[in-house]
Amino acid sequence: MKLLRIGAFGAERPAALLADGRYVDLSDVVDDFDERFFGGGGLERIRPVVASRAASGQSLELGGQRIGAPIARPHQILCIGLNYSDHAAETGQAVPDEPILFTKSPNTLIGPNDDVRIPRGSTKPDWEVELGIVIGSRTSYLDSVEQARDAIAGFVVVNDVSERAFQLERNGQWAKGKSAETFNPAGPWLVTPDEIDDVLDLGMWLDVNGVRRQTGSTSTMIFDPYFIVHYLSQFLVLESGDLINTGTPPGVGMGFRPPIWLHPGDVMELGIDGLGSQRQNVLAPR
Amino acid sequence: MKLLRIGAFGAERPAALLADGRYVDLSDVVDDFDERFFGGGGLERIRPVVASRAASGQSLELGGQRIGAPIARPHQILCIGLNYSDHAAETGQAVPDEPILFTKSPNTLIGPNDDVRIPRGSTKPDWEVELGIVIGSRTSYLDSVEQARDAIAGFVVVNDVSERAFQLERNGQWAKGKSAETFNPAGPWLVTPDEIDDVLDLGMWLDVNGVRRQTGSTSTMIFDPYFIVHYLSQFLVLESGDLINTGTPPGVGMGFRPPIWLHPGDVMELGIDGLGSQRQNVLAPR
Repeated sequence: MKLLRIGAFGAERPAALLADGRYVDLSDVVDDFDERFFGGGGLERIRPVVASRAASGQSLELGGQRIGAPIARPHQILCIGLNYSDHAAETGQAVPDEPILFTKSPNTLIGPNDDVRIPRGSTKPDWEVELGIVIGSRTSYLDSVEQARDAIAGFVVVNDVSERAFQLERNGQWAKGKSAETFNPAGPWLVTPDEIDDVLDLGMWLDVNGVRRQTGSTSTMIFDPYFIVHYLSQFLVLESGDLINTGTPPGVGMGFRPPIWLHPGDVMELGIDGLGSQRQNVLAPR
Repeated sequence: MKLLRIGAFGAERPAALLADGRYVDLSDVVDDFDERFFGGGGLERIRPVVASRAASGQSLELGGQRIGAPIARPHQILCIGLNYSDHAAETGQAVPDEPILFTKSPNTLIGPNDDVRIPRGSTKPDWEVELGIVIGSRTSYLDSVEQARDAIAGFVVVNDVSERAFQLERNGQWAKGKSAETFNPAGPWLVTPDEIDDVLDLGMWLDVNGVRRQTGSTSTMIFDPYFIVHYLSQFLVLESGDLINTGTPPGVGMGFRPPIWLHPGDVMELGIDGLGSQRQNVLAPR
């Protein structure tokens, strides 16, 4: 399934996208795609509803409606740093021998096509196309990497927007440059694993103002999604609906010589094969 | 007011402590002490209710009932590192010139007297008595440090339990050693600012197995609570009900030569003048 949330910010309705681009409204079946939904077997519950409504033609046109993040504000947003060997190289840092963990404030989550706002005092705003993992059930101390498959509800495109001066020059830790409002566009949809042939072989891209800046593939991740979920579960308890950003391939602004930073009026477009694409206008600080 | 939550984990009832040690139940007036409560003027709404119920003798005996954390699971737990000059010295690190920010998973929050469980693979579990700030309203880009006073709902004792090997020797960031389940005892109550003479002059202490390990005072904080709230509001949006741990005074296990770590069967007792005290049994990994 491809799950999405449609409507104004904070009042999105849960829905499922069909193969023909139309959608099935699910707001009469579930409250939201949130911790309770994922943890309470919600995916299994809606699957036959989506199928039967699709079969009986109970679908609607998406048109110009706003798409929100495909999950409600999660309990936590965890992020893995320097998880592509070529991205580590471009930032001048060593390939890590175990995952680097940092966090973003959960209220950074916005829809895939919402505006991204540069924070006040920012001098080095940057982009990062990433594969996001949505956790499907409360998860702690997994015994094996293989078990992580059962803990994953699906995958999503995210833009891990970053302020490099806040992140790296303001006395740490990285969270300081990762948590400004609007800094986590996600979507357009949550794609369940059964709809993805091989999550370790997906092309990724990001353009700024129509110029290709990031080109990569999940095939060059250092730690794959299953390893990451197993690993994190040894240090903390993952809640259903938690979001994990798994790191970015080469081509972030920080990696250019000289570096390239975002400016008001810029347009970011990004996507991952099979997971959809996003488009954000960059706004000046408020 | 002194606000507390009474009952089994996940089913706590909101209440207010009276001067005589009895309490007023508020579960018919508010759902919980959560984001909506603090953000929706809840403190002002319950103040006359508490006064009138206290005056009319509608109070109950606390007895042996479990006390939970005084706030529901928050949107985020933010922490300030190395915020006491003498603690920075004992860890061999420089006094920071601006606050160090790191985070804990929100689901680490437990009651003040709940068990603390050592995580699997842990070799260096440690303690940290801290002053916690609870945010009272959605807060962004405060214009002045003075404005931070209006953004604070109250203060609380927290134990920022830490696993130093996970925090410092596992490839970063600090969140990795701060987020194990049970790692954030809080309470016994949230004390509103009007009940505290001077939050910058409160004695702090922590004992392990009856031996005094931490002795300090909020008077030696490098960055005070108002500075911290103003500072953080420049980097991210604070939600009502968010918890900020403001750093620990000297005497953590890591600071001893040789270091002293927690073991199963240990008992931690800690407190801050006017804010109450906690007691946790330390359990072996599950």
